Amino acid sequence: MGKVVDLPRNEEGISAALGILKQQFGEKFQSGQSVREQHGHTTTWIRNQAPDAVVFVRSTEEVSDVVKVCAAHRVPVIAYGTGTSLEGHVNAPAGGVCIDLTEMNQIVAVHAEDLDCVVQPGVTREQLNTYLRDQGLFFPIDPGANASLGGMASTRASGTNAVRYGTMKDNVLALEVVLPSGEVIRTASRAKKSSAGYDLTRLMVGAEGTLGIITEITLKLQGIPEAMSSARCSFETVDDACQAVMATIQYGIPVARIELLDAMSVGAANAYSKLDLPETPLLLLEFHGSENSVSEQAEMFGSIAEEFGGSGFDWTARPEDRTKLWQARHDMYWASMGLRPGAKGISTDVCVPISRLAECVTAAQEKAKELNLLAPIVGHVGDGNFHALPLVDMEDADEVERADAFVSWLNDLAISMDGTCTGEHGIGQGKKPYLLRELGGAVDVMVAVKQAIDPDNIMNPGKII
Amino acid sequence: MGKVVDLPRNEEGISAALGILKQQFGEKFQSGQSVREQHGHTTTWIRNQAPDAVVFVRSTEEVSDVVKVCAAHRVPVIAYGTGTSLEGHVNAPAGGVCIDLTEMNQIVAVHAEDLDCVVQPGVTREQLNTYLRDQGLFFPIDPGANASLGGMASTRASGTNAVRYGTMKDNVLALEVVLPSGEVIRTASRAKKSSAGYDLTRLMVGAEGTLGIITEITLKLQGIPEAMSSARCSFETVDDACQAVMATIQYGIPVARIELLDAMSVGAANAYSKLDLPETPLLLLEFHGSENSVSEQAEMFGSIAEEFGGSGFDWTARPEDRTKLWQARHDMYWASMGLRPGAKGISTDVCVPISRLAECVTAAQEKAKELNLLAPIVGHVGDGNFHALPLVDMEDADEVERADAFVSWLNDLAISMDGTCTGEHGIGQGKKPYLLRELGGAVDVMVAVKQAIDPDNIMNPGKII
Repeated sequence: MGKVVDLPRNEEGISAALGILKQQFGEKFQSGQSVREQHGHTTTWIRNQAPDAVVFVRSTEEVSDVVKVCAAHRVPVIAYGTGTSLEGHVNAPAGGVCIDLTEMNQIVAVHAEDLDCVVQPGVTREQLNTYLRDQGLFFPIDPGANASLGGMASTRASGTNAVRYGTMKDNVLALEVVLPSGEVIRTASRAKKSSAGYDLTRLMVGAEGTLGIITEITLKLQGIPEAMSSARCSFETVDDACQAVMATIQYGIPVARIELLDAMSVGAANAYSKLDLPETPLLLLEFHGSENSVSEQAEMFGSIAEEFGGSGFDWTARPEDRTKLWQARHDMYWASMGLRPGAKGISTDVCVPISRLAECVTAAQEKAKELNLLAPIVGHVGDGNFHALPLVDMEDADEVERADAFVSWLNDLAISMDGTCTGEHGIGQGKKPYLLRELGGAVDVMVAVKQAIDPDNIMNPGKII
Repeated sequence: MGKVVDLPRNEEGISAALGILKQQFGEKFQSGQSVREQHGHTTTWIRNQAPDAVVFVRSTEEVSDVVKVCAAHRVPVIAYGTGTSLEGHVNAPAGGVCIDLTEMNQIVAVHAEDLDCVVQPGVTREQLNTYLRDQGLFFPIDPGANASLGGMASTRASGTNAVRYGTMKDNVLALEVVLPSGEVIRTASRAKKSSAGYDLTRLMVGAEGTLGIITEITLKLQGIPEAMSSARCSFETVDDACQAVMATIQYGIPVARIELLDAMSVGAANAYSKLDLPETPLLLLEFHGSENSVSEQAEMFGSIAEEFGGSGFDWTARPEDRTKLWQARHDMYWASMGLRPGAKGISTDVCVPISRLAECVTAAQEKAKELNLLAPIVGHVGDGNFHALPLVDMEDADEVERADAFVSWLNDLAISMDGTCTGEHGIGQGKKPYLLRELGGAVDVMVAVKQAIDPDNIMNPGKII
């Protein structure tokens, strides 16, 4: 746990590349320790492996220039958006150059008639949605953090709205990518669908910057629904709540969000967000559609919930009530951390077929108890995806070991249920062993693709494979 | 037009492989001329290039066995489903062995609770939907032909329902694939979403059998909607009809189908399907949802249609009326052919951003007129995708040349509008020059991926790249 390895460094190449980049980029080149460490991975249990320098770029040409210098000297290149990823994605285990894309934050075009837009990778989802609001449009993917869209594409992010609107793989139409050679390609047109050759868009989405650096993204947009409503309902057991979720999906109710909080998480939310919810498993839902449709959806869910012993069912279309509920959901990470101040949260994100969800969540609760770990659970349960978050005293070697055993056990359990060890966070450094257990020989194909596109392994080395 | 080239043949290898396969597969190995020609491409303008032999397989192991023999002797392998693809996908320009997958037609599992199923590649979409009906489930992708699901995955097929349910890329959860080495991999788990490494599922979907042979497919399913309704509406011009489509999509009406027939196509449908529709541009729509929702959707569309001068607006939830309407739409290929008996139909499938659709369709009509070609148009217009179908006397060299010029002009026009030359048919042999014009340097990345996975180029050579 936390024991990421350092990889061999190409000292000569790094030194040469840094010299050239410093001259070429002036003040946009920085190599002070604090800047470097800020660009290594710090938000979770994985230790920081800082790059040797950071270049703050403003254009595709500048990205290409940096990559060309690094390619010539076989120096690692790591793309950086907001640093909110959770599996060591921006660490530099072999050193190298971090390309900070936060200043590439232009919204290049909004094609309202086509329901799409073109953005630079440093645009964050909140920035985009603020910009779009006046045009009656929104971008639905919401991973919680105000992540950059380049980072979200690179980790194939999803979150609360994915049950209705899909993940980044479903919402990226096309990419501009700087390849490991520095060459710039476009992966697709703006057409809504295409059968034009291999799907390079989907190959780059989720590649975690290991095949190239995304410098422009064409995204699908949605019209802001005429109406939205939210609902909540408490259940006696996780199993009852999950059965209600399964029925909701099977009935084809087009829920926009359907989130589970286990009893421990509800307790945390009550304390952090000053709520007074019953401390039993809770479902939070959101419905999008016409006025009629959202009330119809809420009522239909209400009937289903009743069937599975739901209580305290309540729905509202009042914006302030909706906001309060979802703010509490969004604050769950901090609320959970509040259960044990000073501890580190070790984020997991297994995703299983929905028929196995109740079993998987219940088993995770029991296993945590057995290992004497505090591990609240929240989940994007409409997709079978949930986060158990062991809160660990990193100074306690025995507890760290137990947490490690828990994570390993949980990932293996999900894999054994024909699920995945990562529904939305990605592999990065943290989940590499599980990828192999999950997909076996397919990982050899990934290695072949990586070698074909990045033969010198300069693009974010040490991640995925 | 129709001038596909023959590629160099590895006579020695082919002879050796055929000898081994004949012994190994007995009656399941066939090399008679008529069987071979049936397995080459015959349904469109592209001339037949028959394989040297056909092996009728029944299991993944048998596919792997054939591929291993072919790999050892560097002999081309071409997968065959129903042969309904349109761009020479099953032709054998360098000879080799066709693997006929029609007997791999088992529905392996239906997981109703998870809304997914596992099928062999020879299962057709109609076979699957017949099987699912009693369970209240359906598979929504409908390319018109009763294609095999392996073939549909391989061409990234879509069709009339894609506007609501997406294309094959959106509906395949995981694949089992026999690699060019004969090794068998699984690309993903049954989880609804995943961030586990490179998206090999999406890499194989649309790869047209050039990276491996799909031997098992895990598909997302949908619950059969509580209610369905259909609507039709005539417009004075293609522009009016397209404006109505754009407004419908922008308003977020979740249409399940929205199809355009131009005036010439309506004439063809009237003659073929014995209808009496006004011979002006027509939209056909289908709505899925609850009873309330489908009537609400139909009424909303009615208001939009009125705004754009629509006339004869009519909607129905009566199954027999719906069936008649959609049968006529499905028969459009034959109805169009009826406009000029004896001619060959040259299928095109450009897809453009919806804001350019009216312009693109209108320009195509004018260009066809200018070139003195008969080219009825139908389209999956909610996605900006349409088919202009020049009906050509293949004995008339001048007309063939004009048709060739038309197709080339249309593909280039779509590309210039930031669209694609192929929304759903694939590249195959027919569209290779356009792929390069559309995606430029990205094609080099496709070549690198192909070489990495299939270094001896035995998998469906001469297609895509």
